[in-house]
This record gives sequence, C-alpha cells and structure tokens, in this order.
Amino acid sequence: MIDLNFKDLEVDCMLISGLPNVRYLSGFTGSNGLLLLSDDTHDAPILFTDSRYQIQAAQETKGEAKVHLVRSCPLSHAAAKVLAKKRYRKIGFEKGRMTYQQYLELKEKLPLNAELVPTGGVVDKLRMVKTPAEIDRIRRSVLTNSKAFESAKKAFKHGVTENQAAAQIDFQMRRYGAERTAFETIVAFGNRSALPHARPTANRLAKDELVLIDMGACQDGYASDMTRVLFLEKPTPKIASLYRAVLEAQLAAIDAVREGVKAHQVDQAARKVLAGHGLDKHFVHSTGHGLGLEIHEAPRLGKKDKTRLERGMVITIEPGAYIEGLGGVRIEDTILVTKNGCEVLTPTSKELTSL
Amino acid sequence: MIDLNFKDLEVDCMLISGLPNVRYLSGFTGSNGLLLLSDDTHDAPILFTDSRYQIQAAQETKGEAKVHLVRSCPLSHAAAKVLAKKRYRKIGFEKGRMTYQQYLELKEKLPLNAELVPTGGVVDKLRMVKTPAEIDRIRRSVLTNSKAFESAKKAFKHGVTENQAAAQIDFQMRRYGAERTAFETIVAFGNRSALPHARPTANRLAKDELVLIDMGACQDGYASDMTRVLFLEKPTPKIASLYRAVLEAQLAAIDAVREGVKAHQVDQAARKVLAGHGLDKHFVHSTGHGLGLEIHEAPRLGKKDKTRLERGMVITIEPGAYIEGLGGVRIEDTILVTKNGCEVLTPTSKELTSL
Repeated sequence: MIDLNFKDLEVDCMLISGLPNVRYLSGFTGSNGLLLLSDDTHDAPILFTDSRYQIQAAQETKGEAKVHLVRSCPLSHAAAKVLAKKRYRKIGFEKGRMTYQQYLELKEKLPLNAELVPTGGVVDKLRMVKTPAEIDRIRRSVLTNSKAFESAKKAFKHGVTENQAAAQIDFQMRRYGAERTAFETIVAFGNRSALPHARPTANRLAKDELVLIDMGACQDGYASDMTRVLFLEKPTPKIASLYRAVLEAQLAAIDAVREGVKAHQVDQAARKVLAGHGLDKHFVHSTGHGLGLEIHEAPRLGKKDKTRLERGMVITIEPGAYIEGLGGVRIEDTILVTKNGCEVLTPTSKELTSL
Repeated sequence: MIDLNFKDLEVDCMLISGLPNVRYLSGFTGSNGLLLLSDDTHDAPILFTDSRYQIQAAQETKGEAKVHLVRSCPLSHAAAKVLAKKRYRKIGFEKGRMTYQQYLELKEKLPLNAELVPTGGVVDKLRMVKTPAEIDRIRRSVLTNSKAFESAKKAFKHGVTENQAAAQIDFQMRRYGAERTAFETIVAFGNRSALPHARPTANRLAKDELVLIDMGACQDGYASDMTRVLFLEKPTPKIASLYRAVLEAQLAAIDAVREGVKAHQVDQAARKVLAGHGLDKHFVHSTGHGLGLEIHEAPRLGKKDKTRLERGMVITIEPGAYIEGLGGVRIEDTILVTKNGCEVLTPTSKELTSL
C-alpha cells in the first residue's frame, strides 16, 4: 500500500472515493469501493465494498487492506460508522471525486465533533509521476495500440464505414492483449474529422478523403493514446499543408519537453508554430494530458497549467487544427518525460501516409 | 427538450450535471457538459461545454439549447456567472451527479442571496419509464447483443482463453451495429465464474467446464444486458442442479413482473426459489436493475426498493448463485414491463446448452 503524507494533509485519516485512486493505492479493481487510510500505522487500511466483490477484493488487496463488506446501505454509511467508532476528528475526503450526495450521507451519520475536510488531488498528484512498474505497463499498452493500428490499417479501403473500421481497430487491440479500449475509438472520414471528438458513423470512405484515427488501449489497467491521419490516395494541397503545419507543431512541442519545464510552456511551443501558419484559432483544445490508470490525468498541457514536468511523467502531445467544411488534423504520441528531454513511446510513423 | 416539473421542485432553475441526464434532455453526447433549465419558458435552455464540442453541440441540440462555449475555466464558473446575471435565487442541482468540488466552485462564484438546492434523482426518475423511441433503441441493442452471442459461440472451444472469447464477442457486437459494449464483457471459465464480476484472463477453457458470459451492447446510446451459462461438453451433476435452481428463480422473478408490483417483490420471488434450494446465501446481489442510456439505472430490484413498476420500464432479471471453488451461475434477460406482465426482449435460449 502506498503511503499518503498525513502531516501535510492535517487530517487523521483519508477517505478515498475515486475508483482509480482506490485501485492505485489498494489494487482493488471493482466498480464499488471506498478506501479508508489512517495516519495511525497501527490501523490497517479498510476497503469498503459490496458482497459481489467479496472474493475479488480479498485477492486483489493481497491482505494489505481489511475488506469490509457492506450489505444494503451506501458504502458511506458503513464508513461513517467505522469513522465514529475510531473517534477520528479530522476526516479528509476527495472533493473532486466524491458526489455532494456522498458528502451528505457521511455528514449525517458522523458525530458532531467530526469534521469533513475537503482535499483536492492528493492521490492524483502522487499518480502523475509513474513508478517503473507503471511505465512498463504503459509501454506494453502503447505497443499493443500501435500493433493494432498496423493490423487494422488494411481495413481502410474505399467504401468501408467508420463503424466497421473502428470495430476492426478495437478487435485488433484485444487480440494483441488489451482488455478494452481506453476510450471510444474515433474514426472520422473527410470533413467529419473537423469534429475533434467525432463518434464513428455509417459514413463510407471515399477517394482522396482523409481519415482521422484516435485510439488507445487499456492493458493491465493502463492507457495508451495515439492519433494518426491517413489519406485514401492523395490529399488535396490544402489538407497536405494543414498536415505539415500540425506535424511541425507536434514536433516543436515534443522538443520543448524535459524535466523542469512547465506544462503551459509545452502548450505554448505548439501554439506558436500553429500561429505562424495562421492556424492558432483552429487549435481548440490543449496540447496534451497525463495518462495512466485513466486516459485523462494530471497534468493538463494547456495554456494555464503551471505544473513542473518531472521525469517519470507520461503525457500525450497532440496538437490539432480543425476547419469546418474542410477537415481536421491531429497528431498524437504518448511520451515519457526524462531528465534531458523525453522518450517518444509511440513507435508509429508520422510520415504523411497514402493508403 | 423534455420539460421538468419546476413547481414540485420549488426552484427557479435546475443545473443538470449528470452527462446521461444532459444527453436525455438535450441530445448532447459529449464528455463535458452542464445544462441549465429554467422555470421561465422565455429562457431557452443553455448548454455549457468547451470549444472541442462547438460543432457537435450545435448539431446535437438542434437549436433547442443555446450553446455556451467555455474557455479555460471550469464549466461551473461560467454557469455561476450566467446564474448571477439572470438573478436566479433558488438553483436546483443534482446532488448525486455533482462532485463536492463543483458544488464549491458554484457556491464561491454565486451572489450571497442565491441558494443552491440539492435535488435527488429528478431526471433519473423521468428516465425510468422509457418513451416508445427509447424502447425501439433498446430492442435493437438487445437484438444486436443476442446476434453477437450466437456468432461468438463458436469461439468457445477447448483451449480458447477468456480474453480471446471476450474479444470475439465484442467484435461481433460492433459488427452487428453496436458502437461499443455497454460494459466490460465478462467471460469466466470454471470456478472463476464464482466471481460475480470476473474480468477475462488468459485462462484456457477445459473439458467439462462451465462458461459464464455477461455481455451487453451499447447501440445508438442505449444498453442491453444478458448473461448466459454454457458448458463445454457435460456439466457435473452439482453444476447442472445449480443451473436448474437459478433458472427456476429467474423464471419466477419474470413471472412476478407486471405494472403495479413493487421492485422488491420481484427480488423476493427470485430469492424465495433459491432459498427453497438452500442457495439464498449464495445469491449475493440484487435481482436486477433498470437500463437505458446507462447500464445501471433506477429502479434497482433489490430487497429494499419500493419503486412501483410501471409499463414502459425496461429492467434486467438476473438472479445468480456463486459457490467458491465450484462455480457460479447467473441467467439474465432484458425485459419490458407491460400492463399485465412483461415482454422478455432477449430472444436467446436459456436451455442448458452443451457446446
């Protein structure tokens, strides 16, 4: 079990309600869980879950947490009883990962002298810098994703639908070892690529159209994330120059990454290149994000994020430009921050590729 | 846009933060959105989202909501500004679908005379009874799921892994029209089926083992859900009698469903049959749940849910019994509640099937 720094938190205990955080700390992967960690090292961590997970919780936590099975009441009520019994006074909770309702459920069952202390991003901050074991898992997820891309590429023929191509991608990911996709695969043909989060449709691929693919595997719990743009036959000159501009921005952002640099400086590097091409107003999202047990984690590589990059962080670099009626281009890799730069984990080519 | 009953709510407006509720009311399917509905019919609904969804939000809401694009601040801050400008005093919010942090973000930006009123399940309750258009979508999702099951059945051969079989199921779902699975497909061989929420592994299927498959499609946004148990060759007498007991319980529960019956009475019907076989303590979850835009919706067919079933509700019926070391059996259909009983939407056979 990973320890929290209770001194800085100024609480007697922490209730962890975000499921990825519960998993990170305890190993438990179920869909219903609440983890209680105490400042007192004599108190073992307690995992509250329901009876569906009786066997699984014991297996996954490997004896490092006491499993407390809850029947027919909210987990928060069961937790409140334990908190009261242990006479904790200052009870930290994850304000960004607890609903207002759970907060009320806790409050109404706690003694009057117990105080609920909202904390923000305690575990999320820990999770930003990955352990070597986590980096290994992300590497495997990235490789699975790229292998699936290569295998699925042959599906992109004249007349294939976005849905069919996406189904092929998802199947190949599973075949290479992913337990699922890390997010709903995006396949967008032609000018639908101008929607940064297009869902696949029954649209068919036509000659000279561009294909935007945004895909990520989830393997052994860990996410990968990659975007590539392909062309069926020949891109128009406009699209080809859009592609070159976005690639230039992506390479500039990668070049800006190293330990000590601020997240917003990496975003700035991409934005500056696109501004040079008159495309900055078409770049409608941030340059990237952390990833790991979740597909979107801290830091966010946006205009305002002052997070200092540290070695061991794994982030995406994915500038894009979207022009309604014409199309959109985004190019994305998963990268590992190192002391003097970064390692691009994604092995897939970014050359302008005609199918 | 579906109307809320503001009189009963005693609020001037409602902030909808649960994404499936945002989708239900406005049509918007993006991953970041906040919907503001007002009691004043002159005030159009406002959908707050970020610039990634500029084009998509306009398309999906079909002009029924004003799209308010938010740049570089939480959606709740942008919403608070609008709420203050419109001088709303009593602002309803979804306590079960808003984090404590969002609540704080709203509160700190609102004028002192504005009151945040926690409401519970307002839209969730509306969603329990499906519209004819929703029932059509669920029917299609159920059929896709059952077709995928039939096609994937041939994958269950001696030596196949749980992962490979699950990948085949997911691929077939996509092939028949699902945009994704409604949840992570469960394939559990042998005694791993005793884990009600087992994740597929690299375990290989052996002779005389049972196969538990829990699968659901998500098609056009709507979920289906089905569990079946198959046998590679012949089940042991113990497993065969476990299967018969669970099937008897499932049929009894289906028989108990009709408009006017309470949810817990359906649960009771299944539990009573399993108790007759001495299996009640091995039935560690509730008998079923509503489904629709989400895989788990109200009502919950558990021991304590007093919800009156209404025609048009779509629910699962899925009793099970799990014996550590031996195995587990669960049998599940998606059904539609009618005036005098129910319609079992799932067409897949429940005969004890040897592969």
